[in-house]
Amino acid sequence: VSASVRVSFDVAVAWIDAIARRLDIEDAPLSEASGRVLGEGIRAPRALPPGDCAAVDGLAVRAEDSLGASAYNPLPVPAFAVMASEVLPAGTDAVVPLGFAERDEAGRVVLVEPVFRGANIDRQGAVAAAGALLIAAGTRLRPQHIGLAATAGMARMRLVRRPRVRLAIVAAARWGGSVDSNGPMVRAAVERDGGLIVESSLVESLVAAADMVLVIGGAGRGREDGAAAALAASGTVEIHGVALVPGEAAGFGHTAAGVPVMLLPGMPAACLCSYELFAGRAIRRLGGHDPSLPYRSRIMTTARKIVSSIGTTEICPIRRLHDGRIEPVAAFAEIGLMAAVEAAGFVIVPEASEGYPQDARVTAYLYDEK
Amino acid sequence: VSASVRVSFDVAVAWIDAIARRLDIEDAPLSEASGRVLGEGIRAPRALPPGDCAAVDGLAVRAEDSLGASAYNPLPVPAFAVMASEVLPAGTDAVVPLGFAERDEAGRVVLVEPVFRGANIDRQGAVAAAGALLIAAGTRLRPQHIGLAATAGMARMRLVRRPRVRLAIVAAARWGGSVDSNGPMVRAAVERDGGLIVESSLVESLVAAADMVLVIGGAGRGREDGAAAALAASGTVEIHGVALVPGEAAGFGHTAAGVPVMLLPGMPAACLCSYELFAGRAIRRLGGHDPSLPYRSRIMTTARKIVSSIGTTEICPIRRLHDGRIEPVAAFAEIGLMAAVEAAGFVIVPEASEGYPQDARVTAYLYDEK
Repeated sequence: VSASVRVSFDVAVAWIDAIARRLDIEDAPLSEASGRVLGEGIRAPRALPPGDCAAVDGLAVRAEDSLGASAYNPLPVPAFAVMASEVLPAGTDAVVPLGFAERDEAGRVVLVEPVFRGANIDRQGAVAAAGALLIAAGTRLRPQHIGLAATAGMARMRLVRRPRVRLAIVAAARWGGSVDSNGPMVRAAVERDGGLIVESSLVESLVAAADMVLVIGGAGRGREDGAAAALAASGTVEIHGVALVPGEAAGFGHTAAGVPVMLLPGMPAACLCSYELFAGRAIRRLGGHDPSLPYRSRIMTTARKIVSSIGTTEICPIRRLHDGRIEPVAAFAEIGLMAAVEAAGFVIVPEASEGYPQDARVTAYLYDEK
Repeated sequence: VSASVRVSFDVAVAWIDAIARRLDIEDAPLSEASGRVLGEGIRAPRALPPGDCAAVDGLAVRAEDSLGASAYNPLPVPAFAVMASEVLPAGTDAVVPLGFAERDEAGRVVLVEPVFRGANIDRQGAVAAAGALLIAAGTRLRPQHIGLAATAGMARMRLVRRPRVRLAIVAAARWGGSVDSNGPMVRAAVERDGGLIVESSLVESLVAAADMVLVIGGAGRGREDGAAAALAASGTVEIHGVALVPGEAAGFGHTAAGVPVMLLPGMPAACLCSYELFAGRAIRRLGGHDPSLPYRSRIMTTARKIVSSIGTTEICPIRRLHDGRIEPVAAFAEIGLMAAVEAAGFVIVPEASEGYPQDARVTAYLYDEK
């Protein structure tokens, strides 16, 4: 594959989708499951509930014993205190809720009305028969899934492994300072996307074990091309340059051992955008997550024209007006990362488009909406 | 305050909003900022960029030196290699991108066209003037905020403190087993909502330092009333019983030292619902987050009647049909937590309502939508 041709955004995304396959499955305790993806469906190991259970706190009785009970004919009956969800003692088949039974002078439980068989009982298997599917493979685990698995008696789950991402920061100096703005930003994004970061030097990254290598800076073609040159020397550069603004300098390839490598530009705005659209997508795919952008997308109406260049896919920051329409705000090229801070979200204008006129219906990605 | 009267859902929510105030602010490294809430606005400590900077990798030159340059008149000029975002060397005022300059036999940089003053330069202060607001207090921090703060030279931020939640699990046995299904579920939810869990016994919880105490189980009025009794003995029970299904047994109060205490029912479905609506809301408020449910809400149309009882607020699980409408599915009372696993989300039917007819427009909360 030639590494010198700038590819379209769509080709870059297709490359990622082809090489970033869901990782293998590991066994993990419930305490590590939240937000991760279930690798194998969970089936009920036994009926749930495992027997007829009390649905409320109360007294377990045999319904038959209560026949004829009334205020005029209080009937003493054998009764067993049970808590909600406790399996009923053998021989009982109904529960009298607390407060609906009385005690006589001898301390015996007396019923003042008949109880029906099955009253206040959750039947064996009412939630699930033994072997029934409780949670499907591929489910992103929320608190209720973890609770249900625990209820079914499980202490561990089979989860898609978290991608181990080797992160090498090559270029750091910005605006004459020595602060690395990309490292903290990319670490936060990788963690949000479910990856586990291992910090590395560039050289080490290209030979060590990992599920993905992420190199920040040195992706360009000028003095800052160290990363691409190093990858070309020890592995393969399969794409170098994408028709995406910001993010043109991004490059992709593999180490000699076959680990996918993503080279992201060192300019912070380009680093952010290429992370979100390329590296983040790969990490989300590896971990079994929805690969699309982690933002709500909505079809919205433009209040003003959004201008873009034909031949590049462009990320255009937008703001929302009070009437719900959107309009472009200062671009990444003008104010860098500040664009992503000031904007409510962005529109991705495809390569073949010069942008959108006023009153167009476009897909907007919104940072802060639920 | 009487602790024996069951209050409405709205009263319970109002109580939480009155007692759960945003915590104080702490100083934290950028590595701990992701997803948390900025406590104090961040201002630019100096102009950004701090001086005129290269906008691209290239050669910094003085525009004046290039006057008259053409393919027929290549002009040797003093030039300094610069990387994108590097502050320009003194005396230069334009950047020639890589590939747009040549070298003569002597190795000198020669220009073959004139360069305009300011070409390919990001002006000092173009992103922000010194002292300008970069990120507003109250912002939930995403990767771009962390990157922008780093770009401005910051290594730390002022963040709203994460709530320390003391968690005591009182009742654990379910369905005759010894597995505690609530612990793993509640821990996952507290972490999702930004809380830091400290595990405690009930007794210790009611006297130790914390931002909130969360007691699971023992909230009822029957044999399982241990938590409420313990709280009443050492602190105050301000609400005991809420007209919410599931979740009626929830109770709220304060320890003797004034720490808010939430007693949640031990039945898993009631525990989940009362966590989401009460405890989670309090934790989100303490941490400075949006207190509303962490789910997307949408106005949707009912394809079938949703039935509820007057006098209680009811959480009704729903599924989405292919046509985008919703209909009720098996209730929490029938299948417990499995309802939250099978459902796409839920509708909250208010106390004064008997439910909704077919074709009603209702607010649905959706678990899995972005």
